[in-house]
Amino acid sequence: MDRPAPPPLHTPAALPLAVDLYELTMLQAYLHSGLGGEATFSLFFRKLPPGRSYAIACGQQEVAELLPTLRFESSALEALAGVPGLSPALLEWLADFRFSGTLRSVREGTPVFPQEPILEISGPLPEVQLLETLVMNQVHTQTVLATKAARLRQAAGPVPLVDFSMRRAHGIEASVRGVRAFHVGGLDATSNVLGGLTYGMPLSGTMAHSFIQAHDSELGAFEDFWATSPAPTFLIDTYDSLQGVDRVIELSRRLGRQPAAVRIDSGDLGAQAREVRRRLDAAGLDSVRIVVSGNLDEQAIAGLRAQEAPIDGFGVGTALGVSRDAPALDLVYKMVDYDGRPRAKRSPGKVQLPGAKQWWRRYDGDGRVLGDVLGLAADRAEGEPQLRARIVAGELLRDTLHTLDEAREHRARELAGLPAARIALEADEPALEAALTPALRALAERH
Amino acid sequence: MDRPAPPPLHTPAALPLAVDLYELTMLQAYLHSGLGGEATFSLFFRKLPPGRSYAIACGQQEVAELLPTLRFESSALEALAGVPGLSPALLEWLADFRFSGTLRSVREGTPVFPQEPILEISGPLPEVQLLETLVMNQVHTQTVLATKAARLRQAAGPVPLVDFSMRRAHGIEASVRGVRAFHVGGLDATSNVLGGLTYGMPLSGTMAHSFIQAHDSELGAFEDFWATSPAPTFLIDTYDSLQGVDRVIELSRRLGRQPAAVRIDSGDLGAQAREVRRRLDAAGLDSVRIVVSGNLDEQAIAGLRAQEAPIDGFGVGTALGVSRDAPALDLVYKMVDYDGRPRAKRSPGKVQLPGAKQWWRRYDGDGRVLGDVLGLAADRAEGEPQLRARIVAGELLRDTLHTLDEAREHRARELAGLPAARIALEADEPALEAALTPALRALAERH
Repeated sequence: MDRPAPPPLHTPAALPLAVDLYELTMLQAYLHSGLGGEATFSLFFRKLPPGRSYAIACGQQEVAELLPTLRFESSALEALAGVPGLSPALLEWLADFRFSGTLRSVREGTPVFPQEPILEISGPLPEVQLLETLVMNQVHTQTVLATKAARLRQAAGPVPLVDFSMRRAHGIEASVRGVRAFHVGGLDATSNVLGGLTYGMPLSGTMAHSFIQAHDSELGAFEDFWATSPAPTFLIDTYDSLQGVDRVIELSRRLGRQPAAVRIDSGDLGAQAREVRRRLDAAGLDSVRIVVSGNLDEQAIAGLRAQEAPIDGFGVGTALGVSRDAPALDLVYKMVDYDGRPRAKRSPGKVQLPGAKQWWRRYDGDGRVLGDVLGLAADRAEGEPQLRARIVAGELLRDTLHTLDEAREHRARELAGLPAARIALEADEPALEAALTPALRALAERH
Repeated sequence: MDRPAPPPLHTPAALPLAVDLYELTMLQAYLHSGLGGEATFSLFFRKLPPGRSYAIACGQQEVAELLPTLRFESSALEALAGVPGLSPALLEWLADFRFSGTLRSVREGTPVFPQEPILEISGPLPEVQLLETLVMNQVHTQTVLATKAARLRQAAGPVPLVDFSMRRAHGIEASVRGVRAFHVGGLDATSNVLGGLTYGMPLSGTMAHSFIQAHDSELGAFEDFWATSPAPTFLIDTYDSLQGVDRVIELSRRLGRQPAAVRIDSGDLGAQAREVRRRLDAAGLDSVRIVVSGNLDEQAIAGLRAQEAPIDGFGVGTALGVSRDAPALDLVYKMVDYDGRPRAKRSPGKVQLPGAKQWWRRYDGDGRVLGDVLGLAADRAEGEPQLRARIVAGELLRDTLHTLDEAREHRARELAGLPAARIALEADEPALEAALTPALRALAERH
């Protein structure tokens, strides 16, 4: 096809082109038909993936920061001009596009359940429709990844967890957004330099098998590494973990120093950790920590902790980076109100509650969650309202934003307040179901 | 942490920061220890994910185009200067970094099997180590996605397949790289505007449920949409697919025109398609196509084709966008040679073949694959050598690159040449295993 190239992927001008073609053709038809009235779209999921009992809402704050900045620059418009079927009127409208509406969202780190909106966007219908794919893509990525991180945190209890997943993430962007989501979800550090620097997260790194292989001896490699790192973590499994730890002990004796930790990356991690611990302790190196990695997920971590393996840190890669067992969430962005009238879709198996919404979480005096109530935006109900305005008339309300540490604390506190049996790794109760307010129930029955 | 911000994610200057911290600390130790000799690293996988019988190598050509352009600009260096433990000598080295080595890779679209390198990079050890995460991340993403697309193509046979997955992809970058990989893997079009424009792929879009909901009647919505689109695809399942198609028929009669297609997005797709086809044909609209979507994967598509449902196109989203059943591949980037000597790691369960490699694919006179042979780079064997130089002395060999259409044809031809039972959706034979040359076998036994 002979079309001008769009702005390069890794530039901000490319972002507004993150649309599905039908959003542009719909927009064109809205403009043509004069359908520019006020609409509300709601972002939620109908059901959780198998094995999941909650999702941690994440990424909506970055979306809030992004929307007011979106502009179709000339390079983007020129590229679109080459797409058959797009009218000059549409391109003019895009050239003038500024988001002028409202965004209401839950706090970053909030555990959410089926039908509970993570966010709602209101504004002129063409604007709100245009944002569909960008908003879904960004919130989906971080929500999927934060949820996986939160499950790993549940499994690891107080043991430090480090993200080693950059190489397996679906792209650099996914890995960087992941670092943010993982921190909210409960990881402690990351090996991802770009992600760590972008979000001010603690960086962590050990050593590479290749460094050891480049040396003629493992001992020589350890010695060389220690010369450049005052408190190294030695990777001891390149050839044999027990030989490896003996070399660390030998070198420690010779240099009269102690490394920070040793790392085991393959084999039976629990059994090796026990024997490595025994040898370190026997050599007086009882402050040297043992960290493990290698195909870990929440079940493997829970298993190692159940057998009381002496492990002081877990590095997680693949299972975290792509949320391997549940890489997608059935997130939808649906029109719920247009031109002052609630709307809903009635396709088989896809029932949807009409109307712009609010939802409330009720707590007892000790912070335990009693339940959620889902209602219309105009309803009143007991509990803490969850959707708060973040953008009003196109302006970001900066004072409604939270730091990532606040989001992390919020996630931890909220999960601690939920019934343990409902949110366990292998939950034995169905997902929490929000009660509906009478007004929402009545409206849903009429639709 | 108080560190200067790195270049923003969506800028080219951020790309060289796509490293795991240990690559920088290793590099620092190499520089300190004078380990700057020639190294070769090999990118391959040890085993396929469950349910997969091949992988389609993809993305290595974009890596080839990227490596010669990588530079650490001042914004990146300033951000790194704030990371504890990185030496001024390292930062100086990074400031001068230009990739000066060699990249050899298989053609885009090549089906690959365990132990067969997708690419090998040779050059001064610090340079080759530095690239680890970036190369893995990029090739991993596209290889995972192209493989899923190829399986969908196998299931769909000759029926057109459209990518609807942008909203579920792990980020915009993943969705855009996906469009490239999906085309190589065999999809025909995409709804992703940025991805389609970036790679010159056919764009495709239908209509949104919200467009219909914004109207007071479905018929009015169809009428409005037809006014802006000469050959529309009508989404007929917002309320009831059979009522929906009756309205399309009514409108067709009234306007004396035929739409391009109708689309069903929910419910029993096969049963609905049959009844919709019957009604369209009875109304003389036998040229109107039926396209379906809604949680499709290769099994669902194979099932619909097995029941001979009258379907003229499939739209695939979630299952494709994250390769839901196999979102990760156990891709590794391992040192196989340093300073003129083959190297290998011997950790339990992670055996690795030493030495820089070549591999050959043998065909009979009809293009049927007889088998693969894996050997050392210096070996000779029968068949088509698979690894070809793409970068030499840091210079991209542009005339070794292929167009995406060539990659797509290569994938189709190669898959057609492989034994059907081995690469079937539910393969009943183990993955193809490359024979080893005598020299490689002897070297592996000595290691």
